[in-house]
Amino acid sequence: MPSVTRIDHVAIVVDDIEHALHFWRDALGLDVAHVEDVAGQDAIVAFLPMGDSEVELVKPTSDQTGVARYLDRRGPGIHHICFEVDDIEASLKKLAQHGIRLIDREPVIGSGGKRIAFIHPESTHGVLVELYEPSEQEPVIRLARARELADRAMVQGQAVAAGILAFLRGLRTSTETIHGNDAE
Amino acid sequence: MPSVTRIDHVAIVVDDIEHALHFWRDALGLDVAHVEDVAGQDAIVAFLPMGDSEVELVKPTSDQTGVARYLDRRGPGIHHICFEVDDIEASLKKLAQHGIRLIDREPVIGSGGKRIAFIHPESTHGVLVELYEPSEQEPVIRLARARELADRAMVQGQAVAAGILAFLRGLRTSTETIHGNDAE
Repeated sequence: MPSVTRIDHVAIVVDDIEHALHFWRDALGLDVAHVEDVAGQDAIVAFLPMGDSEVELVKPTSDQTGVARYLDRRGPGIHHICFEVDDIEASLKKLAQHGIRLIDREPVIGSGGKRIAFIHPESTHGVLVELYEPSEQEPVIRLARARELADRAMVQGQAVAAGILAFLRGLRTSTETIHGNDAE
Repeated sequence: MPSVTRIDHVAIVVDDIEHALHFWRDALGLDVAHVEDVAGQDAIVAFLPMGDSEVELVKPTSDQTGVARYLDRRGPGIHHICFEVDDIEASLKKLAQHGIRLIDREPVIGSGGKRIAFIHPESTHGVLVELYEPSEQEPVIRLARARELADRAMVQGQAVAAGILAFLRGLRTSTETIHGNDAE
């Protein structure tokens, strides 16, 4: 069974990146990983990662895209939500079998080698949903970017792994204490 | 400096929970953790966790709430996005200092002891944003719910922790191979 593993990003359409960053970066305190003029999408995109997900601020640079028409019709706001899936073909097949209308019946190649597909909001009760499956190329691209983070993460990661074990052991002990442990 | 740690949930307003679950649960494959009639909010909420976040489907049960008016005015769709922060008072103070209009100038107590606050979409370019700081009571409430998951997680968690270490070691080795490691 194909499964959804996490929220990859929430895309927000804006009419001015710098104005939007006054809220998201300056006031709320998100970091801006990078700002990119994505030529294929006719948009400037600011990527603001936090936790295991990102906020993406999208400013259309032509009038001809779906995002531009959305901005024109509804004003700035949340445009779509993107979920990572472990098997995008299997997800699309299952959606089609349930009568869900797909914008992309097959995965298309997005920026950075991503494999993505959009689901039509008509079948999702008004939510534009994007699916995304990591490709084999992506880790290579990300690996180069991740180098400077690796040394720091190495140290922190050992603490995190030890913390997970300690937490799970603590949770087990705590629940046994709460619920009694007479079975022993 | 207060910081945003993750997307806690994306709330989607729906006019029929079962119709919405046809897409989110049956076709997309998300698990439904539970469905709750949240009396204080005049809404039925279905919680669908994945990764480190949740999708929440919200169906108003009265005409008097903001969510009900939103549904009436705009139809079903994404209603708001909620971020976990590590210090909600500090976040609200910083937002106010940047001239951001707050719906809640002080944190309010939500369901399960959560401390939350909403930011006005007028100051966020059309996005209703909720902030959430975990409270000291919440872990106790969650602990009771987590008992049946703990034994399973114990086994999986050890594998996850070992996996994190192996991944970080592999990343370090790979980047050293790519970039050379002449420093040794």
